[in-house]
Amino acid sequence: MTALAPALLNPRRIALVGASTDPARLTARAQVYLRKHGFDGELYPVNPRAETVLGEKSYPSIADIPGPVDLAYLLLATEHVEGVIADVAAKGIPVAAILADGFAEAGPEGQARQARLLATAKAAGVRILGPNSMGLINLNSRTACSVNAALEAESLPAGRLALVSQSGSMLGAIMARGAARGLGFSHLISTGNEADLTASEIAGMLVDDPQVDAILLFLEAIRRADLLAEAARRAHAAGKPIIAYKLGRSSFGAELANSHTGALAGSDAAADAFFRANGIARVTMIEGLLEAPALFIGRKPIAAPKRAVSVMTTTGGGGAMAVDALGVAGIETAAPDETAVAGLKAAGLPHHGRMIDVTLAGTRADKVQAALTALASDPNTDLALSVVGSSAQFRPHDAVAGILGAAKAGLAKPVAAFLVPQADVSLRMLGEAGIPAFRTPESCADVIRAFLDWQAPRSVPAAAAITHVLPARPDEADARALFAALGLPGSTATMATPDAVPDGMRYPVALKILSPDLAHKTEIGGVVLNIPDAAALKTAATEMLARVKAKAPEATITGFLVQPMAKGLAEAILGFRRDPETGPMVLIGAGGVMAELHRDTALRSAPVSEAEAHAMIAEVKGLKPLAGWRGLPKGDLDALAKAIVAASRLAALEEVAEAEINPLIIHAEGQGVTVADAWVVRA
Amino acid sequence: MTALAPALLNPRRIALVGASTDPARLTARAQVYLRKHGFDGELYPVNPRAETVLGEKSYPSIADIPGPVDLAYLLLATEHVEGVIADVAAKGIPVAAILADGFAEAGPEGQARQARLLATAKAAGVRILGPNSMGLINLNSRTACSVNAALEAESLPAGRLALVSQSGSMLGAIMARGAARGLGFSHLISTGNEADLTASEIAGMLVDDPQVDAILLFLEAIRRADLLAEAARRAHAAGKPIIAYKLGRSSFGAELANSHTGALAGSDAAADAFFRANGIARVTMIEGLLEAPALFIGRKPIAAPKRAVSVMTTTGGGGAMAVDALGVAGIETAAPDETAVAGLKAAGLPHHGRMIDVTLAGTRADKVQAALTALASDPNTDLALSVVGSSAQFRPHDAVAGILGAAKAGLAKPVAAFLVPQADVSLRMLGEAGIPAFRTPESCADVIRAFLDWQAPRSVPAAAAITHVLPARPDEADARALFAALGLPGSTATMATPDAVPDGMRYPVALKILSPDLAHKTEIGGVVLNIPDAAALKTAATEMLARVKAKAPEATITGFLVQPMAKGLAEAILGFRRDPETGPMVLIGAGGVMAELHRDTALRSAPVSEAEAHAMIAEVKGLKPLAGWRGLPKGDLDALAKAIVAASRLAALEEVAEAEINPLIIHAEGQGVTVADAWVVRA
Repeated sequence: MTALAPALLNPRRIALVGASTDPARLTARAQVYLRKHGFDGELYPVNPRAETVLGEKSYPSIADIPGPVDLAYLLLATEHVEGVIADVAAKGIPVAAILADGFAEAGPEGQARQARLLATAKAAGVRILGPNSMGLINLNSRTACSVNAALEAESLPAGRLALVSQSGSMLGAIMARGAARGLGFSHLISTGNEADLTASEIAGMLVDDPQVDAILLFLEAIRRADLLAEAARRAHAAGKPIIAYKLGRSSFGAELANSHTGALAGSDAAADAFFRANGIARVTMIEGLLEAPALFIGRKPIAAPKRAVSVMTTTGGGGAMAVDALGVAGIETAAPDETAVAGLKAAGLPHHGRMIDVTLAGTRADKVQAALTALASDPNTDLALSVVGSSAQFRPHDAVAGILGAAKAGLAKPVAAFLVPQADVSLRMLGEAGIPAFRTPESCADVIRAFLDWQAPRSVPAAAAITHVLPARPDEADARALFAALGLPGSTATMATPDAVPDGMRYPVALKILSPDLAHKTEIGGVVLNIPDAAALKTAATEMLARVKAKAPEATITGFLVQPMAKGLAEAILGFRRDPETGPMVLIGAGGVMAELHRDTALRSAPVSEAEAHAMIAEVKGLKPLAGWRGLPKGDLDALAKAIVAASRLAALEEVAEAEINPLIIHAEGQGVTVADAWVVRA
Repeated sequence: MTALAPALLNPRRIALVGASTDPARLTARAQVYLRKHGFDGELYPVNPRAETVLGEKSYPSIADIPGPVDLAYLLLATEHVEGVIADVAAKGIPVAAILADGFAEAGPEGQARQARLLATAKAAGVRILGPNSMGLINLNSRTACSVNAALEAESLPAGRLALVSQSGSMLGAIMARGAARGLGFSHLISTGNEADLTASEIAGMLVDDPQVDAILLFLEAIRRADLLAEAARRAHAAGKPIIAYKLGRSSFGAELANSHTGALAGSDAAADAFFRANGIARVTMIEGLLEAPALFIGRKPIAAPKRAVSVMTTTGGGGAMAVDALGVAGIETAAPDETAVAGLKAAGLPHHGRMIDVTLAGTRADKVQAALTALASDPNTDLALSVVGSSAQFRPHDAVAGILGAAKAGLAKPVAAFLVPQADVSLRMLGEAGIPAFRTPESCADVIRAFLDWQAPRSVPAAAAITHVLPARPDEADARALFAALGLPGSTATMATPDAVPDGMRYPVALKILSPDLAHKTEIGGVVLNIPDAAALKTAATEMLARVKAKAPEATITGFLVQPMAKGLAEAILGFRRDPETGPMVLIGAGGVMAELHRDTALRSAPVSEAEAHAMIAEVKGLKPLAGWRGLPKGDLDALAKAIVAASRLAALEEVAEAEINPLIIHAEGQGVTVADAWVVRA
C-alpha cells in the first residue's frame, strides 16, 4: 500500500469511482480536468454501466482495476458511498476522497450517516478526505483530481504554495485569483466535512513535502487543534510559514461556518490566541492569503518587532493611503534615521517627514533601489514599503525594476510594494519574483500587521501535574480549594452549620451559602456582607439557611463560607475555559461593569508563563491604572501574573471544563491578590 | 467672461501657458493628452520661445490669443506663476489651473508665496485651481486637460461619476481602476493645495451639472466645510449622492495629509460626524469609492435601516465570507421571512438558515432572478446580496443574467453582487449596467455599511442667539455663568476674599481658587473638598490663598468658588470644540479613568437636537448602566440630553473656541445633573 502522504499529495494511480459518461455532469469533471491539465499517471474510471468513460477504459468495480491504486475519488451518490469503502480497503487503497454531500452538514440524519461512514472506514483502515470534498490538485505533477470549475482555466501556474481549504469553492476562487497574480500553487486540497482527514493533519504532511514553501489555510473551523499545533511547530522548524484565513470573526459568520458541522463554535478570540501561540499568521482579508506568502517565505518571525515601517512613494496620495491604513493597523511609518538619511542623500533623493517622496526619481530603477537600500539600513523599522504610482500601470518593467533589484541584492529587511493604479502586469511581475506586492492599502496594512504579529511557536511552560481531586459536585469551597492547590490560597473558613462559627477570623466578614447547585447566591439571599463579629455571624447563618431553604428547597446545602471583607485597588476577572476548537484558554480582564461593557480582556492558550501573563495584563486597558498610569497607585501586578499562571495550569486537569475567580481583588504593590469569589465546572 | 462653473467643468477654449515643445516633459502632457483623447474645442499653447508647440500654433503671450478663453492651465515654474495672473485677468479668463508645486506644501516660504498668489488672484478677479493641481478632465467632452499619466490609456470610458481629488496621482489611479471595471467618469478634477477653489465648492458646482449622477471625493483635509455642507444639502435634494474617502483615520495619516497645508488637522471622529450630519457617505476602503456609487445612485438614505441583508450564494465558502465580513461591520444576514420563503419555494429553491444556497440552480438566470425577487420582498432586510462563484469567471453572461434581470425588473430594495473568483468580465458587465458589484468581501461589507449609515442631511436645530457676554479672561465662575446662561445652572457661590463667606450654603462644600490663569487647580493646592461649615470655609480660603500665591505668584486671583459637595450615580464629560476642519462639535463621554482609557465618547456637529443628544448618549458604552442595564439604577438621561443640547448651542457664540464640563454629575432619574467643574477658552 502506498503511504498516506504521497497517496494524498501526489497520487499517480487514481480510481474515479462513479465517473460519469456524460461530460456535462459534475461527476465527469475530475476525469475531464485530469486529462485537460495533462495528468500522466494511471487513471481508472470505475463505472459498471459503461465499457468506456469519456473514451477511456472503464472498470466495473474497484476490484477489477489492475495493479495498485493510490487514491480513490468517490463520485458516487451519498447513499452509495459507505458501500464501496470495503472495496477500497480490499484493494489496498490508503485514502478515499468523497465528493458527495448529505453528511454532517445535513442535520442529524446526515451526522449519523457520517459517523457510520467514519466507523466503516476506520475499521477497514481507509483514510477519508471529505465527504463534501471537491478533491485535490497537485499542479507540479498536473494532477487536477477535482471537480472544481476553476479548472476550466486553460492553464494554471504551478508553484510552491500549498492551500488546504475547508470550502471547496474557495479552493478554486483562491487558485484563480492567484493565477491572475502570477502565483502558482503546488497543492490545493479540499477537506470538506473533515470526517477523518483534517486541514490540521494535512498541514503536517505538507510540512514534509519538498514542493512546498508555504502552507495556506482557508478555515471555517479548527478541528484537531493538537495536530495543527504540532504541524505549526514543525513548519516553524522547517522555515515554512503557515498562513490562515478563518471565518467566524463575527457571530453570524461563526454560526454559519459551524452550523453544518454540528460542532460547537469556539470563540474567535481563542482562535486568534491559538494561532499566535503556535506561530500561525492570520490574515483578516481574503486577498491577504495571496499577498502574504511572499512576505513570510524565507523569513522567521521578528523577535522584537518595532511595529514601524519605512515608506517611499512615487505618489503622494497613494503613499498617504498606505501610511494611513498602516496607522489604523497600529503600525507607524517612521521617518528615516541618520543612516538612512545619509544613504538617501548619497543617492540624491530629497526627503521630508515620515514618507520618502521620490516622485521625480520614481521610475529610475537605480534611484528606487538606492532608496530602498538606504531605508533597509534603518534600524528603527521592520520593513521597507515602496508605493508605486502610474508607472506601475504604463511602464511596469521600469516601475518594478528598482524593487526587484533591491530584493535581489538581499537587504537587511523585507521589501514590499503597494501598487496604486490598475497595474496587473506589475503585480504579476512582482508576484512571479516572490516580492510581496499589494493591490489595496488595506490588505497591505493587514498583511504587514500579520507579519509583525507573527511569533515563533511559544514553548509551552512545563506544567507540574495537579494531584488535587475535585469532588463530583463542587461548591465554592471546592473551587477555592482547587485554586489553593494551584498556589492561590484564600483566607476563608467554612462552617458546616450555623453554630460552627470558626475561630480566629478577622472581622468584619462576608458569609455565603455553600451549594453545588446555586450559581447565583445573591439572588436567593445566600450572601451577607460586613458581619461585625462571631455572634452576628451565627445569627446571619441561621437566618440565611432558612431563607435559602425557603427559596431553593431542592438545592443541596453543603455549609457556609466565611471570608474576611477585603478591599483592594481594583478588581479583575480571571477565567479558565476549554475552547471547543482550540482547547484550554486562560483569560484575564478588568473587573466591574465598565470592563464588561468594553469586553476588556486578554486571552491566551493555557498554560502560560509568567512573561506571557504579564503581556496579557499589559493588553487589558482597564488594568493600566495599576501599572501607575497617570500617577495612580500601583497594584501588585506580579501577584496578578502569578495568579494567571496558576489558573492556566488547569489545562493539565482534564476534569475541569471551566473555572473562574470573579472578582480577584488586586491589592497595592507587594500586597498580593485576594480570591473574592470562585467557581468551577467539571467537564 | 464665461461663468465659473462651465469654464471649470467643461472648458471649450483652453490656454496652455508654458506648454513645452518637448513631448517628454511634464509640461507638454496636457496638450498631448487633450489631443490624444480627442478634444475638439480650441487649444492655445502659450510659449514665447516657439512658433509652434507640438505642431500647433503657439502664442507668445496670453494677450495674443484671439477671442475669449475659458480656462488657463498654467504649466509654468513656481516662480513665474504669480506674474501671469494679471494677464489671465486682463484676458477675462475666469479660472486658472496651476500645476506648479512649491507653495503651501513647501514650508513657510511656500506658504507665503501661496498667500501672495491668492491675494493677487483675488484682486484680479481670477479663481485658482491648485496650485499643485494635475488639472481637470471631462470625459464626456473628451477634455483631458491634465498631466496625469493615467491619460496614457488608449481610451477611457465616459460616464456619470464625478471625482474631485485633493491628490493628483489618486485622480489617475481611481480613473484607471474604474476603467478596468467599466466605470466611466464625467469629470475628474485635481484641486491640489486648494488655495482658492476647494473640493467643497466644486462639489457644489457638480450638483448642478446634468452630466453627473454621483460625486466622489478623495480628501486629505476638509476645507470650507460650510460650502461642502451646503453642496451636500443640495445634492441630497437633487438625488445625487456624495461619497467620500478621507485620509486621517490614523494619527500618522492625519499628520501626513495635513503636513503640507500648514492647516491644523481636525479629528477623524469630527470628520465622521460632519459627513454623517450632512448626508455624505464615507467609505473606508479605497476600492469602495468605485464600488459604492452604483448602490447609492438613484436612491435616498433609508430612514430606519434594519441593518440586515438577505444573502444568496452559489458558493458556500464565498457566501460565508460575505456574511462574516458583514457581521464584523455590524450588519446581520437575516434568514428569509415567510413571504420570502414562499417566493423561494415557488421558484423551487431550497433554503437553510441565514444564507440561501442556490449552488445547483446558481447559473440559471431565471432561478437567480426568482430568488432575488423573493428576497427583495422580505421586509426585514435592507438589501439583497448575490454571491457568485466560479460561473462569474467562466460563464460571465450566465452568471450575471439573473442579477441584471432582477435589477431591471425594479425590485423593492437594492440588489448587489459579490464575485468570489477572478471575474473581471462579470465585474465589468455589472459595472456597466450600474449594478453594485464587489471584488472583495471586505469592501462589500464596508460599502453596504456606508449605505446603511447614510442619513439625510439633518435639519440643524434653530439655535436661539446667545446674548451672554464672556469676559476677556474667563475663570471657572465665568465658565459656569456661561453654562448657566445656556440653561445649565449650578448652585455655587463665589467669594471675593476669604472673609466673604456666603450665606445659605448647603454644607459640606468644596472650595476652589478662581483664576483665569490656573487650568490645573489641584496641583497648586487650589481645591479643598468636604468643608463642614462656614468657619472652616473661611480658614480654608485663607490658607488656600497663601498656598496658591506662594506656588503661582504670577497668577491673577479673581476670588473663590464655593459649591456643595455632590454625588450622583455617575459622571460624564461634556465638551464643546470648534474643529479646525469641520467646525463646532459637541462631545459626551463617560467620566472617569476607564472611560478615558477606552476613549468612550460620542461626537456630533453642533448644535444638536434633543433626539440627537439621546442618540449620542446611547452610543457611549459607559453610560449604558444609567439606562438600566443589568437592573442598575437609572440616571437622569433626559437632563443629560438637555445638557448636551445646551452645550451644543455654543456653536452660535463665535467667541468660544472650547468649553467643557468635567465632571458633569448625573443623578438618579428626575434628579437632574450637577456641573462639578467647568472651563471655557476664548477663540
